[in-house]
Amino acid sequence: MRVTILGAGAMGSALTVPLSDNGHEVRLWFTEYDMGIWDAISRGREHPRIGVRIPDCVKLYRPEDLNRALEDSDCVVVAVSSRGVLPISKRIRGLVERDIPLVVVSKGIEVVEGEPLTMAGIVRRYAESESVVYVSGPSLAAELGRRFPTHVVYSSERVEVASRLKREFETDYYRIAVTDDVTGAELSAAMKNVYAIAYGVVDGMTSKKGGAYNNLKAALITIAVEEMASVVEKCGGRRETVFGLSGLGDLYVTAMGGRNSMLGRLIGGGMSVEEALEEMRKRGVGVVEGYQNAATLAKYLSARDINRETAPLFYSVYSVLHEGLPSEGIIKALCKP
Amino acid sequence: MRVTILGAGAMGSALTVPLSDNGHEVRLWFTEYDMGIWDAISRGREHPRIGVRIPDCVKLYRPEDLNRALEDSDCVVVAVSSRGVLPISKRIRGLVERDIPLVVVSKGIEVVEGEPLTMAGIVRRYAESESVVYVSGPSLAAELGRRFPTHVVYSSERVEVASRLKREFETDYYRIAVTDDVTGAELSAAMKNVYAIAYGVVDGMTSKKGGAYNNLKAALITIAVEEMASVVEKCGGRRETVFGLSGLGDLYVTAMGGRNSMLGRLIGGGMSVEEALEEMRKRGVGVVEGYQNAATLAKYLSARDINRETAPLFYSVYSVLHEGLPSEGIIKALCKP
Repeated sequence: MRVTILGAGAMGSALTVPLSDNGHEVRLWFTEYDMGIWDAISRGREHPRIGVRIPDCVKLYRPEDLNRALEDSDCVVVAVSSRGVLPISKRIRGLVERDIPLVVVSKGIEVVEGEPLTMAGIVRRYAESESVVYVSGPSLAAELGRRFPTHVVYSSERVEVASRLKREFETDYYRIAVTDDVTGAELSAAMKNVYAIAYGVVDGMTSKKGGAYNNLKAALITIAVEEMASVVEKCGGRRETVFGLSGLGDLYVTAMGGRNSMLGRLIGGGMSVEEALEEMRKRGVGVVEGYQNAATLAKYLSARDINRETAPLFYSVYSVLHEGLPSEGIIKALCKP
Repeated sequence: MRVTILGAGAMGSALTVPLSDNGHEVRLWFTEYDMGIWDAISRGREHPRIGVRIPDCVKLYRPEDLNRALEDSDCVVVAVSSRGVLPISKRIRGLVERDIPLVVVSKGIEVVEGEPLTMAGIVRRYAESESVVYVSGPSLAAELGRRFPTHVVYSSERVEVASRLKREFETDYYRIAVTDDVTGAELSAAMKNVYAIAYGVVDGMTSKKGGAYNNLKAALITIAVEEMASVVEKCGGRRETVFGLSGLGDLYVTAMGGRNSMLGRLIGGGMSVEEALEEMRKRGVGVVEGYQNAATLAKYLSARDINRETAPLFYSVYSVLHEGLPSEGIIKALCKP
């Protein structure tokens, strides 16, 4: 297969490894924002974000060469930032035939013309694709790029397309499960970032008090998963998706490390949200997905009448991040009668 | 209420804190094996295993004073080791009326006269009780004793008894959920120890290779929970119990720390099972529950025709622990096609 990956960030670049190992012709297209990465990679150095060399056989394309990168492709992977998904979808409309699989690895919810949409939703509508496949599950790009075992989920309303890609892309270290529950996978992928912030808050707040509150953290993970399951069910997805790799698995890996829990830890340690975001900038840590996700998800959920009663923990994090609630509110939401 | 706690180990002693805070008359009975703890506590020192002082109002009873400890009690808590549950059940038969709630916090499966039985099953049969309530969920005793927030599940076939105890025992830091799924709660509590060993093996094996395999650990947690859910369902319990505090929550807290994952880490790091158990003894770490649980659970499951097909990860750990399978077998079970 000829596979074009749009976006040379962490996950787009990591995917070149299992795809090349499967013998596919892999093309990696760099956005305008990826040119720092281009400089490193085109000189044969490691990818600055995942610390891995891109396989030699991968063909690299500059931002202006999008059309050439897409020419005669059998599959296109959308791996740009969540903000970038709308513009890239519009740019590739007409360049990619409707039945070419569009694999989406970007995560989150974006508000488009006032309407909160998922990533697959944006691609489906604005790239006019009928074969969208959404990738979720616990997959730190740096580990996948090193061929560390990674289990993911490919979900698609056209499940036969996801199954075909599973056959083409799977390796002994890159295991792919297939489902038709795109809603469950996408909502889990967005919501887990918010709960990872809550996890960080509890961690920061309690280590300040000198104790590891493991019982509470375990309860938090469980309550988060149950809450995600209720939300997903109300949105038309399936609870089981949340209890699997897309929900529980991804929440675990996100809570254990990464930017979301780091932001939470700073807030739990006593900083205001603004101070914590400023501190993250100082440390050179980029966008904190869960901070944005909380805001767009709140819009998405309230448009579906999903309120504090269904998702008290989610909304407590939202209120801490965007409405000035003290961070103790998260503990209260966890221990309410 | 007058509440008698049988066993002054970690959990029995920790429970004196929320029960005293609720104004109950709490009696703590020491087994013959608890006399080292007696020496510390009766001199006003901290409990040696949880580092907490027992509230002054708690009445302490020596091994020979069992009858006095039980006199006119309104509720009895069984908090001895899993090996001790059968003998104590036989000893209290007739001393405790059938409708007095017997709360069981011991975990595991024991083979009694050739038959593998759960803890609540042993108490029900050998203490001849009709009001058994089983306690599960992520609750490290040292944290509960410090009044750190702890969420547990009280399960009973007589759910109204569990609900009554919830009203009597709950505090703002000791949160109690109630269910009738005793099977789901008990099997989760026993199985999670085995999966925590698997988690330790992966951790030990991969940190030896110089990388934190977080994607794989996240997949392991997810696969373990799904596998437990399948097993519980086949045994007549409910999947949702496993996705809650009793399964996922307790697996999380057990995998993050404790003896089971420590044993796994030693095995994953290259020791044989015997060497690892010997090393644990040297470190002064007592019984590793998951090691025993794997053997008795295998009996329990095979008596119900639950085999490697339903629980491949469980049986891979069993085979590593008890049949000499190399520890890589666990990774293979995780990454099988």
